[in-house]
Amino acid sequence: MSNRQHIIEQKFGHQPEIRCLDHGFVRLIDCMPGLLPAGEDTADYAIAEAARCSYQRGTRSVNDDKALIDYLICNDHSSPLEMVEFKFHIKLPIFVARQLLRHRTASLNELSGRYSELPEEYYVPEPGELRQQSKTNKQGSEPEPIANAAYVQQLLTEGAQAAFADYHKCLNSGLARELARIALPLSTYTELYWKIDLKNLLHLLDLRCDEHAQKEIRVYAQSLLELITPIVPYTIAAWQEHSIYRGGMKLSASEVDTLKHFLADPAGPVPALTHKSKSRQHQWQEKLKRLGK
Amino acid sequence: MSNRQHIIEQKFGHQPEIRCLDHGFVRLIDCMPGLLPAGEDTADYAIAEAARCSYQRGTRSVNDDKALIDYLICNDHSSPLEMVEFKFHIKLPIFVARQLLRHRTASLNELSGRYSELPEEYYVPEPGELRQQSKTNKQGSEPEPIANAAYVQQLLTEGAQAAFADYHKCLNSGLARELARIALPLSTYTELYWKIDLKNLLHLLDLRCDEHAQKEIRVYAQSLLELITPIVPYTIAAWQEHSIYRGGMKLSASEVDTLKHFLADPAGPVPALTHKSKSRQHQWQEKLKRLGK
Amino acid sequence: MSNRQHIIEQKFGHQPEIRCLDHGFVRLIDCMPGLLPAGEDTADYAIAEAARCSYQRGTRSVNDDKALIDYLICNDHSSPLEMVEFKFHIKLPIFVARQLLRHRTASLNELSGRYSELPEEYYVPEPGELRQQSKTNKQGSEPEPIANAAYVQQLLTEGAQAAFADYHKCLNSGLARELARIALPLSTYTELYWKIDLKNLLHLLDLRCDEHAQKEIRVYAQSLLELITPIVPYTIAAWQEHSIYRGGMKLSASEVDTLKHFLADPAGPVPALTHKSKSRQHQWQEKLKRLGK
Amino acid sequence: MSNRQHIIEQKFGHQPEIRCLDHGFVRLIDCMPGLLPAGEDTADYAIAEAARCSYQRGTRSVNDDKALIDYLICNDHSSPLEMVEFKFHIKLPIFVARQLLRHRTASLNELSGRYSELPEEYYVPEPGELRQQSKTNKQGSEPEPIANAAYVQQLLTEGAQAAFADYHKCLNSGLARELARIALPLSTYTELYWKIDLKNLLHLLDLRCDEHAQKEIRVYAQSLLELITPIVPYTIAAWQEHSIYRGGMKLSASEVDTLKHFLADPAGPVPALTHKSKSRQHQWQEKLKRLGK
Repeated sequence: MSNRQHIIEQKFGHQPEIRCLDHGFVRLIDCMPGLLPAGEDTADYAIAEAARCSYQRGTRSVNDDKALIDYLICNDHSSPLEMVEFKFHIKLPIFVARQLLRHRTASLNELSGRYSELPEEYYVPEPGELRQQSKTNKQGSEPEPIANAAYVQQLLTEGAQAAFADYHKCLNSGLARELARIALPLSTYTELYWKIDLKNLLHLLDLRCDEHAQKEIRVYAQSLLELITPIVPYTIAAWQEHSIYRGGMKLSASEVDTLKHFLADPAGPVPALTHKSKSRQHQWQEKLKRLGK
Repeated sequence: MSNRQHIIEQKFGHQPEIRCLDHGFVRLIDCMPGLLPAGEDTADYAIAEAARCSYQRGTRSVNDDKALIDYLICNDHSSPLEMVEFKFHIKLPIFVARQLLRHRTASLNELSGRYSELPEEYYVPEPGELRQQSKTNKQGSEPEPIANAAYVQQLLTEGAQAAFADYHKCLNSGLARELARIALPLSTYTELYWKIDLKNLLHLLDLRCDEHAQKEIRVYAQSLLELITPIVPYTIAAWQEHSIYRGGMKLSASEVDTLKHFLADPAGPVPALTHKSKSRQHQWQEKLKRLGK
Repeated sequence: MSNRQHIIEQKFGHQPEIRCLDHGFVRLIDCMPGLLPAGEDTADYAIAEAARCSYQRGTRSVNDDKALIDYLICNDHSSPLEMVEFKFHIKLPIFVARQLLRHRTASLNELSGRYSELPEEYYVPEPGELRQQSKTNKQGSEPEPIANAAYVQQLLTEGAQAAFADYHKCLNSGLARELARIALPLSTYTELYWKIDLKNLLHLLDLRCDEHAQKEIRVYAQSLLELITPIVPYTIAAWQEHSIYRGGMKLSASEVDTLKHFLADPAGPVPALTHKSKSRQHQWQEKLKRLGK
Repeated sequence: MSNRQHIIEQKFGHQPEIRCLDHGFVRLIDCMPGLLPAGEDTADYAIAEAARCSYQRGTRSVNDDKALIDYLICNDHSSPLEMVEFKFHIKLPIFVARQLLRHRTASLNELSGRYSELPEEYYVPEPGELRQQSKTNKQGSEPEPIANAAYVQQLLTEGAQAAFADYHKCLNSGLARELARIALPLSTYTELYWKIDLKNLLHLLDLRCDEHAQKEIRVYAQSLLELITPIVPYTIAAWQEHSIYRGGMKLSASEVDTLKHFLADPAGPVPALTHKSKSRQHQWQEKLKRLGK
C-alpha cells in the first residue's frame, strides 16, 4: 500500500461545497470508501465487492461491476448499497431540516440552540420563489409566484428581523438560550453533521428530488445528488434507469390490465382505467403521456 | 368504552395458527390496534387515522379510508403503515430463521440453545420438495424434484438423527449446551417471538412471497400474509394492486422507451430492448408476456 | 376466549390524557398487549412471556414475572422490552417536538403545515418559567425566573401574535401554505401520532426526565411515564431501581478506585478523584453526597 | 489537500487481520474517517468535530478532544460516536454469526449457501475449550474442559465430516444448493462483509467481550476491539473508564442505599442488601469484592 489520494480530492480537487438558498450549503466532507484500490476509478467497486461476498465462487462470470450494480438495483438487492457511506456538513433552514430528519436511518449532530446563541440568519425566498398555493394539490404549490411578491417578501424579512430583535432582548434580559430561541421563526438556519449510507440516501433522493417535494428541500436533495454522482457514477446511472421516481415507471395492476387490453387492440382508443379515483386517473394520464399516448 | 372483542378473536374466533413444513407453525398472537372503535370493522382504520393526523382539517373530503389507503400505498407514503403492529410466535428451521432475521427492523426473542436443551426436531423435505438445482438461476431451484429423492430424503433423515445422537452424547459427557449445539444441522427447528410493523412486514412479504425466494421461507411468508389479511384487508388489497411484486409492474427507463416506440407503431414488431444484459432481456420478455405480447 | 376489557380502559376507566404546558397534551391511545390473559393484571406479562421463549424449558423455576423482569433490566437484557408497544397522540410546541424526534426508533405521523393551515396556538411560558440562563451549565437554565419576566412574557406573546398575523397575510396573498409557515415561531404547536416500544421509551425517559433535559420536554416525558406506569408497573419499578438516571448510580473506574481506597481507611478523608476535569470532580461530589459523604 | 496515508495503513502498516478460532479471521478493511487532517493523529477527531457542531461557538474553552470525548462518553452523549464507521471482513462459524447478527444496527452481506457451494470448513474446539456446562449459570459454561475431551472432539470432527459428505452426496444427486446445505452443522464457517458505527460497536463490545458471552464470540469481539483501538484510542480509553462492563460499576438503588448505610458506620459490618434474589445478592458480593470488602 502507498500514499493515494482520497476519492473526494481526486474527483473534485478540493472539498466540494454547493451553496443552497440564500445562506445555506451542502458540503461533502467524507466518504467510505475513501481510497480506491489500484485499477479502480470510482467508489462503486465497494458495492460490487460486498455483493460478491454473497455470491463468491459462484460469480466468476459476472466480471463487470457496472452490470452487477445494474442487476442489484434492478432487482432491489439493496443491502450492498449500505456499504458506501457519506458524511455531509449542511446548513439549512429549520423547516427544511425537519423534512430531512424524517429520514430516520441517518446519524446526525445539530447545532444546539440551548448551547450557543444562534446567528441572525434566516431564509427569505426570492420574489420569484414566493409560489402560489396549488389549486389541485392540497400540499403543493404552483411554480408561479404570487402577484404581490415584493410586499410579502418584505413582510417575511421584517417579521424575521423583529423575531431576532426579540430574541436578543430576551437574551439581554438573562433569559436562558433554550427559552429565548422559541421566538425564532422556522426559517432560521441551523447546521448539521449528517451521515447516511447510499441505500438510504437514494431512497431520500427518490422522495426529495421529486417534484412533489417542497422546492426548498429539492434544492438540497439535488445538491446531495450532484455531490455523490462523481463518486458512485455507475450506481447513480443504474438508479436513474430503474427508480420509478427517475426514468422508471410503476404500473398498478389495473394499469397493467388496461395497457394489456389496449395492446390487444392498438387501433382502438386507450380503454378507461377501471379504478375511478381522481388521483389515480390523473396519474394514469401522466403515464400515458410519457408513453406517447 | 365498554367490553369489546379483540380483533383477532373477532376475525378468527380463536388464536389462529398455520402449520408450516413438517414441524413448524406461525401463530398470530397479538395485533395493534387490538380493539375496533364503534363502526369500524378492520384494523385499517388505524392507518387512516394516523394519516389524517398529517392532513387533518384539510382532509374532510377524503372520507373514505379505503381510498385513502390506496392513495398512501400507491404513492409510497408508507409511514402510516408503521402504526399497525403484529406479534407472532413462529417455529421454523434455523436456515429459514436466518433468512427471516435478515429483515432487521423487527423485534425478536429466540429460543436459546445455550439455556435449554434443544428438542429433537429437524426439517426433512418431502420427496416432492427435494428440488433440483436450477440450471438458469444460480441461487434458485427448479420446481421438479431430483430423480433419487427417496435416497436423499433418507440421507437427510439419518444425518440429522446422527447429529442429534452426537448432541446427546456431548451433553451426557458434561459438555456445555452452548458447545454441544454446534453439531446440530441448520435444519433444526427453533422458535421466535417476533414483532414487526405492517410497513416492514409488507416489504418482507414483497421479497419473501416472491418466486425468487426459497420455497421454505415462502411457506412462512404466505402464512404471515394469510393471517394478517382478515385484519387489514383494505391495505392488503392496495398492496396487491400496487406492489411490483404482486399485481403491479416496474418498467425501467429503457423499457419505457421501448414501449413508447412500440406504441408509436403498434403494427410493427416490439422493438428490441436497448439494454443488452441477459437477465434484463429475460425480464423484459416476462413483462411483455404479462402485457399479452 | 371471551370479551375482555382493554388494559387502558381497565386501568384508567377512560382514554387517559394529561395536559401539558399551555395548550398541549399527551394521550395514550393504544398499547400492545391490549388484552390481559386470565390471571394477569398488568402488561408486564408480555415481557416475561417473550423472555421465556428464550429460556423455555430451562426456566420452570423462574416462576415469578416480577423477579424475571428485575433480572432482565438489571442485566441489560433489553430485547424482551421491545415486545410492549405504546401509541400516543401528542400536542406539543415544535421546539419540543424537535427534541422528541431525535429519538429515531419510533414511528410517527405529524400534522403537515403544507397540507393544512396551522391553528394559532403557540407556547408562552408562565412568568415563573421564564428561567435564567445557567451560569455553570452552558446548555441549561436556573430554576429561578428572570427579573423582568412579565415584560419578556409580553414580548413573546406579541411576537407570536405578529408572526401569526403575517402568516395569515401571506395566506391571504395566495402564498402556498408550505412557504407561509416559515414565518411561524418555534413555539407553534404541532401534533403527532407517535408509536414506540417500551425499550426505546425507557431510554428516552432516562434522558428526558433527567434534570439536564429542558424543563418543557421533561413535562412531556413525565406525562409519558405517568401514563405507562399503571400498564407496566413491575417494569417501571425495576427501571426505577436500576437506571442510573433514577435510583441507580454509575461509577467510573477512577471513582471505583477512589471509593476502594476510602473503604480501606474509612476513618480518613475521602481521597481526591484522580481525574482532574471540573465536570468529573463535580459529578463525583454529587455522588458522594448521595452516599451521605 | 495532498496525498496522505489511510489511517489503517498508518497505524498497522498493512491491512490488519486477526486469526480467530481454527479457521476464522477478522479483517479491518475500511474506516471513516480514512484520512487524518494535518495535526491529527487518530480518528477520534471526527467525534469531537461532530460534537462541536452541536456546541459550536459555545465550546471555545473545550479545546481538548480527549477531555471532550471523556465527557461525551461519561454522560451518554453517544450520537457523535456514530460519525465513525468501520467495515470488517469476518469469517466465523454460523452459530457465532447468529449471535453477532442479533445486533441489528449494522450493514451486512453474507456468503450465500444458495448461490455457492460452501467450503468444507467447520469449527472444532480444542480439547481445552470443550468446556463443562456451568452448574450455577444455566446459559454458561465453566472454564474447565470436560473429562473425556478427546473423545468428544473426535465425535464433533467425525460428525461434521459425515455432514459434509452427505452435503456433497446431495449436490451430486442434483439437489439444489439451497436444500443440500440444511444438512450442514451450525459449526460451518461463513463469511461476512460487516459495517457498523462506533456507537453500536461499543455497545456490542460491552455485551460480547463480557465474561457472560460465549467464549467463541468473545474471541471475535476481542479481535474487533484490538483492531479499532489504535484508530480511536481516546474513545476506547474513555469507554474503558466509564463502561459498566469494563472499569466502571453500576449500583442499583438498593445497593446505593446499602453502601450509604455502611459509609455512615464503616466500623460495623456491611449491611445486608434488602433485595433478596439470589442473583442480585451474588452481584452485590462481586461488587463489594471489587471495592475491597
